[in-house]
Amino acid sequence: MDPCVREARESDLDRILQLIVDLASYEKSAHEVKTTTKQLRTALFGPQPAAYALVAEWDKQVVGLALYFRNFSTWEGVHGLYLEDLYVMGEYRGFGLGKALLMSLAELTLERGYARLEWAVLDWNQPAIDFYRSIGAVPMDEWTVYRLSGAALAAAAATPVTS
Amino acid sequence: MDPCVREARESDLDRILQLIVDLASYEKSAHEVKTTTKQLRTALFGPQPAAYALVAEWDKQVVGLALYFRNFSTWEGVHGLYLEDLYVMGEYRGFGLGKALLMSLAELTLERGYARLEWAVLDWNQPAIDFYRSIGAVPMDEWTVYRLSGAALAAAAATPVTS
Repeated sequence: MDPCVREARESDLDRILQLIVDLASYEKSAHEVKTTTKQLRTALFGPQPAAYALVAEWDKQVVGLALYFRNFSTWEGVHGLYLEDLYVMGEYRGFGLGKALLMSLAELTLERGYARLEWAVLDWNQPAIDFYRSIGAVPMDEWTVYRLSGAALAAAAATPVTS
Repeated sequence: MDPCVREARESDLDRILQLIVDLASYEKSAHEVKTTTKQLRTALFGPQPAAYALVAEWDKQVVGLALYFRNFSTWEGVHGLYLEDLYVMGEYRGFGLGKALLMSLAELTLERGYARLEWAVLDWNQPAIDFYRSIGAVPMDEWTVYRLSGAALAAAAATPVTS
């Protein structure tokens, strides 16, 4: 059985949400997923898509997901792709589906003339890190992402700009 | 003189590119900026903008820049804003322009019902880190961004998906 990677369709929505929750569980954060099928439909298939998805099939079942969006490099002057979620269901790992999803995304990046493909990895996820290094991905070791959300975001938003 | 933060206009393009190069110099990477004014015009003011910019003025001169784009949270089901470049020219630092740009972006994030504002910081940029922590931004310490580009991207793209 060969893996099949294709663009996600609207009929995949429930399954995609399930894969998002499964991935969050693996990251010990399933309780943090608040996304509804309706929100996901708007994001992926609405008039102005916020994100895009490839799915991997095995035996006609969707068992893997690569959810991504476009970012922008001020140094290169062109887009890149940012892979937000890459996930393959536990019992289907080891058959090359994750690799197939990532390689398909690399192909898409290059086809469109974009400069780079990026994604974030949890520092304790050694099997993933080993795989990413093996294909030549470079860790942005010097950089840390900062996040403003919740009460701190609201407080910042309420700060007068002139002072 | 109060700082003024406003949306970037097409007439700001040359100045915006200069600020991008200045920031890259500060990050010891000016030689890596390949972006042209034309690319930047398409990205910021084309029919399908890839990115957006706020500028800070001092004495009617553009001296600061916040360049950002929309990302997407699969856990929240909504957009966030990702601040790609935040920069204020050296001689105009200390007057609150950087803070005014960031707070304006926080306001925009909240107004649109987005979940969060994120950005990456160089680990040796302690003044910036201190400032970001002081407003309640949280470092995503457990995560590292991996990047696939150049020859490694081309090799990945050429890998057959079925094997």
